[in-house]
Amino acid sequence: MSLWVASLMLAGLMLRSFGEPGPPGEADPLPSWNDGAAKQAIITFVDKVTQEGAPDFVPPAERIAAFDNDGTLWAEQPLYFQFAFALDRVKALATQHPEWKTKEPFASLIKGDLKAALAGGERALTEILAVTHAGMTTDEFQAIVQRWVRTARHPRFNRPYTECIYQPMLELLSYLRTNGFKTYIVSGGGVEFMRAWVEEIYGIPPEEVIGSMGQLKYEIRGAQPVLVKLPGVDFIDDKEGKPIGIQRHIGRRPIAAFGNSDGDRQMLEWTMAGTGLRLALLVHHTDEKREWAYDRNSQIGTLSTALDEARAKGWTVVDMKNDWRTIFPK
Amino acid sequence: MSLWVASLMLAGLMLRSFGEPGPPGEADPLPSWNDGAAKQAIITFVDKVTQEGAPDFVPPAERIAAFDNDGTLWAEQPLYFQFAFALDRVKALATQHPEWKTKEPFASLIKGDLKAALAGGERALTEILAVTHAGMTTDEFQAIVQRWVRTARHPRFNRPYTECIYQPMLELLSYLRTNGFKTYIVSGGGVEFMRAWVEEIYGIPPEEVIGSMGQLKYEIRGAQPVLVKLPGVDFIDDKEGKPIGIQRHIGRRPIAAFGNSDGDRQMLEWTMAGTGLRLALLVHHTDEKREWAYDRNSQIGTLSTALDEARAKGWTVVDMKNDWRTIFPK
Repeated sequence: MSLWVASLMLAGLMLRSFGEPGPPGEADPLPSWNDGAAKQAIITFVDKVTQEGAPDFVPPAERIAAFDNDGTLWAEQPLYFQFAFALDRVKALATQHPEWKTKEPFASLIKGDLKAALAGGERALTEILAVTHAGMTTDEFQAIVQRWVRTARHPRFNRPYTECIYQPMLELLSYLRTNGFKTYIVSGGGVEFMRAWVEEIYGIPPEEVIGSMGQLKYEIRGAQPVLVKLPGVDFIDDKEGKPIGIQRHIGRRPIAAFGNSDGDRQMLEWTMAGTGLRLALLVHHTDEKREWAYDRNSQIGTLSTALDEARAKGWTVVDMKNDWRTIFPK
Repeated sequence: MSLWVASLMLAGLMLRSFGEPGPPGEADPLPSWNDGAAKQAIITFVDKVTQEGAPDFVPPAERIAAFDNDGTLWAEQPLYFQFAFALDRVKALATQHPEWKTKEPFASLIKGDLKAALAGGERALTEILAVTHAGMTTDEFQAIVQRWVRTARHPRFNRPYTECIYQPMLELLSYLRTNGFKTYIVSGGGVEFMRAWVEEIYGIPPEEVIGSMGQLKYEIRGAQPVLVKLPGVDFIDDKEGKPIGIQRHIGRRPIAAFGNSDGDRQMLEWTMAGTGLRLALLVHHTDEKREWAYDRNSQIGTLSTALDEARAKGWTVVDMKNDWRTIFPK
């Protein structure tokens, strides 16, 4: 971020510290964000790119914002929610598969021993994904996920996973859309898994979801065409995959990107390397009490090189504990 | 199409034959279409899905229309325009590649002997694509295509390829968008090739273009990240690939699909197999004089099984000669 932008941000903060609440009658678009550098960086950015005739103005068609999902829009601890879905699904399918009682990784999973189940490494994970995410049509899979979303509850918060989303980020999504942005999800999660619920929960339509993808097969069953989910993986939307997924899907570079882990580093880099004013933001999980505190040493959502790059380049870093007034929706 | 819809269409035609020109003051949204079954099928469909409270009403978010490009939105004879681009590109690069003088398929291409060049089959084609569509960044490729589009001219019509687009289809795109549709391109053509010009020519933004895709690589050059186009093919958006591409990219089924060849059959099938009112339309090239007449025996844009299915299932078939008042924009 340039010195010039930094000074403007400072000016904004000073105005606030002199008790200036913004234009009269204008409601705060981000009420769950405490006043501070992160909130100010967002508002300054949006004001500048939407002000017609100003040097940083960006036409609405180019106002593309990219959001990671796990750890950025919803929580990701104690394990990725999509993986929790897969484990629940294995348990639900176990009665139809008596052979799993003696077959790893299923035997350990059914006993609830996640560590033993995952001792099989990538092969174990692939087998779990194959039985839970393939072998059905896309419509059938959507119905399975939607049923799970309505019934499963987060072990710590005892509420649906879809209520373990971040209230400040919901406000941010809505604020950007009100200002003419398209808000894309760009996540390592499975695209079919996310599309089953993101429209209702985030207001993001299926065509604005980019994710990892399994192979699909077009087939005629009876007289009806169906798309069958196959076990093979087609695309991993993580790390270098994120800018590639963005290019394949959107075909233009975002002007704002939001993430929380090293898996988002390339997406933020790619976003910031374009011309004109841009915004890169990392959510730093610093709130052990209300959520979790983790970064460099976490297995899930590792934040290390991206945090270094954010500090070196002046990207915005949200300190969850201090910047967010509330974490989850009431 | 149901008997009921057919009767309504007939009623519409009868109204017209009695000299009823439609509500006073309402301009014809499709002036380049002659009155007839195809035009009436389109207008009846749009009227029904946009009439709030009516049984066939479709909310705007679900108004997805999918258009093939080659032979549906622009011409495709005497050879696919993207292939004409590749040949021009080989000629432009030849001075930097003296070894091509004795190396097939390039030697024949430079001499203008397309038939000999393509005698090498798929391997020849792959080599041509590799040198013309890979080895540069996505930004560089876009600039190359945009330069070509501005300078190359169609051999028969002696006008830019981007003026060999169909005026009646431009009106249809605009008519659908005015009625709240998103108009996607779903083409076997390369996605990066199309995105270089479709926004200006069709008013379709890059994120609404689905096409075949080459492999991409994320790389840091100097301090700048770039996406490099690799020779490998990642996805072929043709035949079964079209419904798969639609699912991967849009995540919901179109309610209207437009094509002209057997490569579009599965896309039309997939579109029509959803619930509620739907429209499938094939452009039949029947106008030797103003464009071309070809179907079952054409190498390019073969229309055979899709024409049979259209007739069996009552899909709309445009007879280019009789249904279109004009072919290209003036």
